[in-house]
Amino acid sequence: MLQGKMMGCKLLLVLTLWAMSTDAFRKGAQMKKCHLSKYKSLPPQELETFKNVKDRFEDIMLLSDRKCNTKIFHRNWEVKELSVHDRVILVKEQLHLIIDVLENIRDPNLSKPLGRPLEILRHIREDLKSCTRHQPDNHQRSGRLTSWLQQFHAAKKMETPGCLEASVVLNLFRLLNEDLKCAAYMESCT
Amino acid sequence: MLQGKMMGCKLLLVLTLWAMSTDAFRKGAQMKKCHLSKYKSLPPQELETFKNVKDRFEDIMLLSDRKCNTKIFHRNWEVKELSVHDRVILVKEQLHLIIDVLENIRDPNLSKPLGRPLEILRHIREDLKSCTRHQPDNHQRSGRLTSWLQQFHAAKKMETPGCLEASVVLNLFRLLNEDLKCAAYMESCT
Repeated sequence: MLQGKMMGCKLLLVLTLWAMSTDAFRKGAQMKKCHLSKYKSLPPQELETFKNVKDRFEDIMLLSDRKCNTKIFHRNWEVKELSVHDRVILVKEQLHLIIDVLENIRDPNLSKPLGRPLEILRHIREDLKSCTRHQPDNHQRSGRLTSWLQQFHAAKKMETPGCLEASVVLNLFRLLNEDLKCAAYMESCT
Repeated sequence: MLQGKMMGCKLLLVLTLWAMSTDAFRKGAQMKKCHLSKYKSLPPQELETFKNVKDRFEDIMLLSDRKCNTKIFHRNWEVKELSVHDRVILVKEQLHLIIDVLENIRDPNLSKPLGRPLEILRHIREDLKSCTRHQPDNHQRSGRLTSWLQQFHAAKKMETPGCLEASVVLNLFRLLNEDLKCAAYMESCT
């Protein structure tokens, strides 16, 4: 009887501790800070791995059909014209497509050199996700961003894998050196 | 009568002077020295004009059919493996095609920014021509270069303008930063 009560207490204690720790973990994840300042400039050796991928891709890209119907990443405005919150969303959404397309490249000449660049891109995406979790609940995306994202998502469904691969590789540096950098500079990107 | 003789003498003098000056000019042109050392590194502002063209081209290139049957500029050897004379021929022959293709690009978004790059490329070609005029008469091209040039000339006849444009633009920096540089370094490019 006493043993049963002790077992019950232990179970209660374990459950309480588990509930507390899970809650703390969830809050911890939510509270992870938004730190993008490290992306104001990427280390040259990291940029070199992206350049290596671009060079190798350019070497073989013309042997396949890469024609696109639209310029998927094209915008008629600059990233600095967006609010600080919208910039983060813009980069994150582009990164989703970029990672997805690069992960599916099967050419062995590219899949190996893509290892490190993909690792970096996934890391950036995680940091951006953590930033969007910190955005105010009442943040309203601008009409400009909303409309661009609609076209972007429509285009990526419509275009061929060959076009998507080429668009993604040719736009890698704009994403890293312009969009991500501007998001990292926050209010100072003007 | 005296006046007639004087006229004759004058004419003879003019003809003699003209013949001497023309000969001197011809020899001067032939004797123009082979100076490629300035191409060991191109000034950053000049390279920037090429980057600008490449960026603009990449922005529109996927909207047209660019598929190629071959990799026109591809080699399975390095430029440094050629003799000093052969390197000059290799760069000159590639430049012929590059200039020809770029001169025929009609897209107004590209034709204007192509102005300065084309000027630089034509200048380089003139310098290379002057170098080939200085090559010994008995210079024998290597089998490797001869065979590559045959394939290169065949490919440029076979491929579409869309493919040629893309191949040329994507290979611009390899030509300037590798092939031309190696030709400029002469014996020191190893």
